[in-house]
Amino acid sequence: KINGERLWDSLMEMAKIGPGVAGGNNRQTVTDEDGEGRELFQSWCEAAGMSMGLDTMGNMFARREGTDPDALPVYVGSHLDTQPTGGKYDGVLGVLAGLELIRTLNDLDIKTKHPIVVTNWTNEEGTRFAPAMLASGVFAGIHEEDWAYDREDAEGLKFGDELKRIGWRGEEPVGQRKMHAFFELHIEQGPILEAEGKDIGVVTHGQGLSWTQVTITGKDAHTGSTPMPMRRNAGLGMARVLEKVEEIALSHAPDAVGAAGHIDIYPNSRNVIPGKAVFTVDFRSPNLDVINDMVARMKAAATEICDEMGLGVEFEVAGGFDPVTFDENCVTAVRNAAERLGYSHRNLISGAGHDACWINRVAPTAMVMCPCVDGLSHNEAEEISKDWATAGADVLMHAVVETAGI
Amino acid sequence: KINGERLWDSLMEMAKIGPGVAGGNNRQTVTDEDGEGRELFQSWCEAAGMSMGLDTMGNMFARREGTDPDALPVYVGSHLDTQPTGGKYDGVLGVLAGLELIRTLNDLDIKTKHPIVVTNWTNEEGTRFAPAMLASGVFAGIHEEDWAYDREDAEGLKFGDELKRIGWRGEEPVGQRKMHAFFELHIEQGPILEAEGKDIGVVTHGQGLSWTQVTITGKDAHTGSTPMPMRRNAGLGMARVLEKVEEIALSHAPDAVGAAGHIDIYPNSRNVIPGKAVFTVDFRSPNLDVINDMVARMKAAATEICDEMGLGVEFEVAGGFDPVTFDENCVTAVRNAAERLGYSHRNLISGAGHDACWINRVAPTAMVMCPCVDGLSHNEAEEISKDWATAGADVLMHAVVETAGI
Ligand SMILES: NC(=O)NCCC(=O)O
Ligand SMILES: NC(=O)NCCC(=O)O
Repeated sequence: KINGERLWDSLMEMAKIGPGVAGGNNRQTVTDEDGEGRELFQSWCEAAGMSMGLDTMGNMFARREGTDPDALPVYVGSHLDTQPTGGKYDGVLGVLAGLELIRTLNDLDIKTKHPIVVTNWTNEEGTRFAPAMLASGVFAGIHEEDWAYDREDAEGLKFGDELKRIGWRGEEPVGQRKMHAFFELHIEQGPILEAEGKDIGVVTHGQGLSWTQVTITGKDAHTGSTPMPMRRNAGLGMARVLEKVEEIALSHAPDAVGAAGHIDIYPNSRNVIPGKAVFTVDFRSPNLDVINDMVARMKAAATEICDEMGLGVEFEVAGGFDPVTFDENCVTAVRNAAERLGYSHRNLISGAGHDACWINRVAPTAMVMCPCVDGLSHNEAEEISKDWATAGADVLMHAVVETAGI
Repeated sequence: KINGERLWDSLMEMAKIGPGVAGGNNRQTVTDEDGEGRELFQSWCEAAGMSMGLDTMGNMFARREGTDPDALPVYVGSHLDTQPTGGKYDGVLGVLAGLELIRTLNDLDIKTKHPIVVTNWTNEEGTRFAPAMLASGVFAGIHEEDWAYDREDAEGLKFGDELKRIGWRGEEPVGQRKMHAFFELHIEQGPILEAEGKDIGVVTHGQGLSWTQVTITGKDAHTGSTPMPMRRNAGLGMARVLEKVEEIALSHAPDAVGAAGHIDIYPNSRNVIPGKAVFTVDFRSPNLDVINDMVARMKAAATEICDEMGLGVEFEVAGGFDPVTFDENCVTAVRNAAERLGYSHRNLISGAGHDACWINRVAPTAMVMCPCVDGLSHNEAEEISKDWATAGADVLMHAVVETAGI
């Protein structure tokens, strides 16, 4: 069994870096705070006797040698970056549980056949630089590295430049590593495990995602002296599309969700009718047909709304991934571990995207989930219990060690 | 008759300061560009033999002496600040037409009995610092000066500090000046004059305005893993309120207008359901009862929408003024001038707020309007013809000179 106290202490120590405004964290990707978090993680890994690799996308790989020099490593990890108003566990738990299982193996003097590598994937959240899971996506060959380097944040800074600036752009070419398997522990970010009183989610599938950036163009005009029939109000057009997004997602409930988290209005002046609205519609479902249907219906509805209102409308893909089926053997290893350790468990479909979803394309992969309070995540009030964290890390260790062999 | 070429040249010269991105201007209040515009205006006034006064709100007063030492001055002017994506004429025409009429009186060697003072009122637009017409409002005793100094822009900078920083916070206590009358020339910012082919609008009334800042509070949560029924989406609540704003304004059309130009979403991340939406609803009508009815209905509708959705909602007054009836004698002076000069004209109700609306509380006041292309304003593409500007300035001069006496 892992040392739950030590894991918790490390979580609290990491949470001191990039504190949020309401008890959570703002440690967004490739900021100075991200750099600080990486340094702390590296120092812990070195203290645990691991060597650190760093690739050209800033992905970190802390390695503990195995007994068989020819065996491919078992990888385990998640991400240390957070949302602007994020929680202390989203991603971080998966990285530090990886570290904790190494510390436990050290304590117990257990050697595995396969090496074990603990990873921190760069820019999982996708807030500062869309899309999410950027660096695991490049690792898995989904995106080109140059394209990733050119992603811009709201200030126009480029991902590649910022990665270099904080000093974490490595030399190792991204995506070369071969994996025996990959395991990721993550908080559920949804309400099911807590509601059903289960300790462990055995993640069999992941929802797919589509991000469509919608740009509606109207005409800047005076809010006072422009008669109602002459207005081309891009903000009102957006409001009508947002209502449709809700309606379309609900039409597929409970097998789909939809919302817009990103909304920018121009010129954003109290007495100017908005001439432009830019927003991103996030649709998800475990069923690819459902996602495609929602996106098509949203585009058709937005086009109809905008035509009627004399507005222009354009659509751009801002990110996305297809639904995922995780590796049967790895999933079984997770389920067996939960069973053996006596933790209650159930199968889950991940509602969120995870680095594991991309790595699943290039290596046998599975995920372990633990509950979080009220299913709340992407919120500074995100909370889990020490027991939940301990159970999740225990199951992770047992699945990893079973796969890595003793 | 005024010198239309010279007026136009000055307009084009001023438009070089704080150029916009699309042919208009971004010379927002108490920025460095505003300071530059003020310097240019001051140099022109001094060249025309006027002395410059400056009050503690940064209002500029360029004075041409009259022949009667006991006579109160006739004031004439508007504002030099612009919207972030504003036009070259909104406000600027009224200030430079005041300057042009002085230049013309100088050319013709005409002395008036009453002095004439050309003003530039600070922060008419109200974009960077709400409310609009801030400094004429303090002048007229509507707002306290300390309150005005404390208004903050989006970066948290204070109006009073910024006014000082650009070097245009004067010593003269604001609001002491007594006026014989005040005249303001402004572009219509609406479509009526152009549509009817009239040269001049004789402004008899001004619409009233109410700005209500609405804050809707939901809960930040993950867009992927939060089931639809658990969501408290502040952005969706806002969308529903925006639809109501349109519906309520249309129910009073053509005697009312309504829109939201200012919209901010938090935390504004693609994969976070918005936990907060802040937006300002702008309702206007020439009828105070209609304004009050619209605001009350909007608040009731927003409260109902938010209650149903489990959202919180708060309302805050962000600005406003009652409908205005301009001074009969001053209005007659404008109408007579248009008549005398042979310009076609009609009575108008101003759709926008103007410094004249506040000054009307403390001095006999009237406004002259000239057409603008397609009624378009608060847009960089705002356009007027040289002839329209000339006609407006001519009527302004004749109304002012008739009131100032020869
Ligand atoms: N786990 C998580 O929050 N990932 C971010 C990508 C997504 O939006 O699903
Ligand atoms: N004239 C003008 O655009 N004034 C700004 C105040 C308003 O919104 O009416």
